[in-house]
Amino acid sequence: MKIAVLGTGGGARSHIAKLAELGHDVVVGTRDPQATLARTEPDMMQNPPYGQWLAEHHPDIPLVTFGEAAADADLVISGIDGHNAVAALTAIAEQLKGKVLVDYACPFIYNPDIEHPWPTPWGVNPILDPCDSDSLGEQIQRALPATKVVKAFVTQEQATVVDPKAIGGGDHTMFVAGQDADAKQAVTDLLKSYGWSDILDLGDIVAARGMEMYAHMHGAIGFALGFGTHFGIKVVR
Amino acid sequence: MKIAVLGTGGGARSHIAKLAELGHDVVVGTRDPQATLARTEPDMMQNPPYGQWLAEHHPDIPLVTFGEAAADADLVISGIDGHNAVAALTAIAEQLKGKVLVDYACPFIYNPDIEHPWPTPWGVNPILDPCDSDSLGEQIQRALPATKVVKAFVTQEQATVVDPKAIGGGDHTMFVAGQDADAKQAVTDLLKSYGWSDILDLGDIVAARGMEMYAHMHGAIGFALGFGTHFGIKVVR
Repeated sequence: MKIAVLGTGGGARSHIAKLAELGHDVVVGTRDPQATLARTEPDMMQNPPYGQWLAEHHPDIPLVTFGEAAADADLVISGIDGHNAVAALTAIAEQLKGKVLVDYACPFIYNPDIEHPWPTPWGVNPILDPCDSDSLGEQIQRALPATKVVKAFVTQEQATVVDPKAIGGGDHTMFVAGQDADAKQAVTDLLKSYGWSDILDLGDIVAARGMEMYAHMHGAIGFALGFGTHFGIKVVR
Repeated sequence: MKIAVLGTGGGARSHIAKLAELGHDVVVGTRDPQATLARTEPDMMQNPPYGQWLAEHHPDIPLVTFGEAAADADLVISGIDGHNAVAALTAIAEQLKGKVLVDYACPFIYNPDIEHPWPTPWGVNPILDPCDSDSLGEQIQRALPATKVVKAFVTQEQATVVDPKAIGGGDHTMFVAGQDADAKQAVTDLLKSYGWSDILDLGDIVAARGMEMYAHMHGAIGFALGFGTHFGIKVVR
């Protein structure tokens, strides 16, 4: 399948590597390919510069603009950070028309001007915007009515999304939500190829609220288990 | 142990029945005992009137005011709804001094004046207040600095809290959060007596944010599995 990954951060790289391993035709989109390749410093999450990673691991995978990447793809995975996702995706609405778009961003904002009355043990608790009465998944779907948006992946550590069997033999749960049943099936099939066996359809894109808002519990669980302990959650029936 | 349960709704009744079964000395608090006992209609969650339930199942368990119930207790479980909890508990701050107080409320508000742009398949999605940059658990702890507040139970269906083995043989996870280690240990011991084996301490009371905000995902999972399907979540390491 021709799959576009938009973004070059850690989560995007996990998908790029896994999709290439699975034999997909992968194309990567970024805002400004020349600028991305020119970077020589690690990114804000301390990943090595994308150009260096690409040269070392996947020299054959093209890096083009967001719009060019989306234009030819059968399925698009957005790894654009939550703060910029709506604007960046709206700018390429034409290329995303009719396509399945997976959004896995969490709309965290780190605003030092906002009061965080009780900082967490691991620093200041970021806040979510939107939150509770709206979600990033819904915002993207409203901004792109001709695109089939599926919210997924966001409840998991990035490395685990493409390697679920690393934890508990893979016996934990991945969630999907969206308006279009065929789009959710396409993402479910992709997840199965990643190794997922328990994939729960949470229904309408409104379920993105719960998936994004779970981020605080995800952070607290990770802190409780200790840095470096990988985990997932299983819906036990 | 002398345990006070504040509230007479479905969640409170689950605890009352289980605590009595375990041989604890249970006392129940309500705002106005005479008014509670005078009610002949089901409550808003369609539970039968408390007086009828009491007479049929636990005629020996006293029903007194919130303050009277808390005054003599070793441990207090608040089943007061999220909207009224801070005010009702602050009013009995003196009786709660030095005590362990378990808060399991979710601060949902059902306000028809607030816009809910995308109603869920199961109706209007309620919103949480407080949310994200604060939580009900933190509000209660701030209002009662001399009380040891523990947030727990809120991530589970009420019936499952007192009967975890009804699902997956009990192999799912209960969370606790709070400032005081001994208080969390007391609640952990109580949970073990309920049948819980996997109890994860999420740290400081700030983790109540994530526990309360998980409510939307809990609702979506419940809807996805279908009405009447009981479930829990397991942190898979």
